[in-house]
Amino acid sequence: MAKSPKEEHPQKVFGWAARDSSGSLSPFHFSRRENADGDVTIKVLYCGVCHSDLHFVKNEWGITNYPIVPGHEMVGVVTKTGKSVTKFKEGDRVGVGVIVGSCNACETCQQDLENYCPKVIFTYNSHNHDKTKTYGGYSDMIVVDHCFVLRFPDNLPPDSGAPLLCAGITVYSPMKYYGMTEPGKHLGVAGLGGLGHIAVKIGKAFGLKVTVISTSPAKEDEAIKRLGADSFVVSTDPAQVKAAMGTMDYIIDTVAAVHALAPLIGLLKLNGKLVTVGLPNKPLELPIFPLVLGRKLVGGSDIGGIKETQEMLDFCAKHNITSEIELIKMDYINTAMERLAKSDVRYRFVIDVGNSLSQ
Amino acid sequence: MAKSPKEEHPQKVFGWAARDSSGSLSPFHFSRRENADGDVTIKVLYCGVCHSDLHFVKNEWGITNYPIVPGHEMVGVVTKTGKSVTKFKEGDRVGVGVIVGSCNACETCQQDLENYCPKVIFTYNSHNHDKTKTYGGYSDMIVVDHCFVLRFPDNLPPDSGAPLLCAGITVYSPMKYYGMTEPGKHLGVAGLGGLGHIAVKIGKAFGLKVTVISTSPAKEDEAIKRLGADSFVVSTDPAQVKAAMGTMDYIIDTVAAVHALAPLIGLLKLNGKLVTVGLPNKPLELPIFPLVLGRKLVGGSDIGGIKETQEMLDFCAKHNITSEIELIKMDYINTAMERLAKSDVRYRFVIDVGNSLSQ
Repeated sequence: MAKSPKEEHPQKVFGWAARDSSGSLSPFHFSRRENADGDVTIKVLYCGVCHSDLHFVKNEWGITNYPIVPGHEMVGVVTKTGKSVTKFKEGDRVGVGVIVGSCNACETCQQDLENYCPKVIFTYNSHNHDKTKTYGGYSDMIVVDHCFVLRFPDNLPPDSGAPLLCAGITVYSPMKYYGMTEPGKHLGVAGLGGLGHIAVKIGKAFGLKVTVISTSPAKEDEAIKRLGADSFVVSTDPAQVKAAMGTMDYIIDTVAAVHALAPLIGLLKLNGKLVTVGLPNKPLELPIFPLVLGRKLVGGSDIGGIKETQEMLDFCAKHNITSEIELIKMDYINTAMERLAKSDVRYRFVIDVGNSLSQ
Repeated sequence: MAKSPKEEHPQKVFGWAARDSSGSLSPFHFSRRENADGDVTIKVLYCGVCHSDLHFVKNEWGITNYPIVPGHEMVGVVTKTGKSVTKFKEGDRVGVGVIVGSCNACETCQQDLENYCPKVIFTYNSHNHDKTKTYGGYSDMIVVDHCFVLRFPDNLPPDSGAPLLCAGITVYSPMKYYGMTEPGKHLGVAGLGGLGHIAVKIGKAFGLKVTVISTSPAKEDEAIKRLGADSFVVSTDPAQVKAAMGTMDYIIDTVAAVHALAPLIGLLKLNGKLVTVGLPNKPLELPIFPLVLGRKLVGGSDIGGIKETQEMLDFCAKHNITSEIELIKMDYINTAMERLAKSDVRYRFVIDVGNSLSQ
């Protein structure tokens, strides 16, 4: 008989878990493996609340394996290292993102694209090499293979820097891969949420002109004055959309709901690139004429590899890029999830795990 | 009052035109401008029958301006050159493709992408700079700005080489632009018609492994033995499609009808690229999950610029690439169009204009 989550490993851990598709989170005692030679044990200090966490606790993608401890935007401090670990030492500040393992052998892994490895191990709702379940960062400690631990730069605040581990790399990686970083070019950011607001900041750091494309006129002032966007297009205002047609070189589409691609494709210039990082669960309509006649492309991208995640953290540290956050206590998480479902957050909840996860 | 097609210019021309959406073609007397300083006058010898010609004569895209003389895959011989033309002389064998003019001033033109110039002049169903209509290559002579005339390599047969002027560049250009030419990589060619069969040959010349993806099992033998493809996938056979999943680096999608993109995207590996050059007149369904999780892209491309068209002709000459053709007389054109509508041609009709267009 399989052991219970509390008994399958020697190290006792405390966190918050959802038990069913109500998505309601509550205190949860479980366990993690002993720190092995290649492992790093981390005391979790902060953990971002990603929109995926909401999808998972409510089983909206139909793949949730309860109980589930979400959280894949962790910043913490190293409390133990295995004897083969030279990159980290006790007391180091580190980050853990969306993935904690991969096969380390395939062509994809060899290219530092562990995130696309067919055997990738996600930080939660996945299985370790030993077949035990993975549990995420809404918990007081975690044991992670050092190859999947990030150095967290000294000058990045650990709370507002935490969301970079997922939201940051998710927008940074496609900008690099698809060549969307040429200074002076015009970037559209569709959707101004957790991902979008970081895309604005990273776009500006690359020297791009950045236009936010949003359904919410109320966000215009903030997008420009607080986040540094150059302009704002209300996507539901045909006159504004028309005026911006054919002006953008790139668009990062962070909208996760089913939405129309045609207007976004229309905003692109010749050779324009639209990259989607959201995951609508139904196909979108793709008009072919504008794609062909404008030599445009629609591409996808999913988080990023560990090497590139480190590069992104260092880039953000250099350019003082952090997430706009609302810091919450652990016991506020269910309210936070409700608010997140209504997009009522600017722009990321981060749980103060270190100071609020007492048993 | 506007002058009639026969009287608006000084040079008398004879061709075949469609007068209405029946698409039926018949003899047509019209005129072309005097050869200006920058012009080249060409006696048309051969002209390919592109699927666009069929769309246009039947007004299937709703933009036909009758009467229409189709034809944009011409090979002929220079009979006159303007005094500022140094690149061509009387007797030279030349080609004319899909475009015969552009603004020559915009950023797009400066980048040798006249095909995407907002003021591009198409070889037929378009307007010259002087506002008179353009008429295509189903005619005995044409006057063209020398900047839009191609040197036709000596070792390329003028009949089977003619379709390269549209079909050839339409598949060559995206392969270059999207980086689909790395030797040893695996190219899928969806649709084995006029465009597809040339894509197979160009793909092989680039050193790619080429798989034809087609609904017609009957074409397998020919695709492999005659065209040089390495393998064949019957797209309506789930077992064959399943076996080929995740094996292709690139796909050129030449299918012009509405069709499913999901199976094609499924055939691609991580970072795979699907480029469509067909023009379905309704949006296609684009599944986002595989695009994001496999960092794949769907792009479009439309013919190519003049400089690249010359490069393509020289490439085809070097690699002995021509179209498989069925040479027809001018008065067979209506039957040819009927057969083309049923895909009953392997793989391109070419009109022997020089020997069959007598008045």
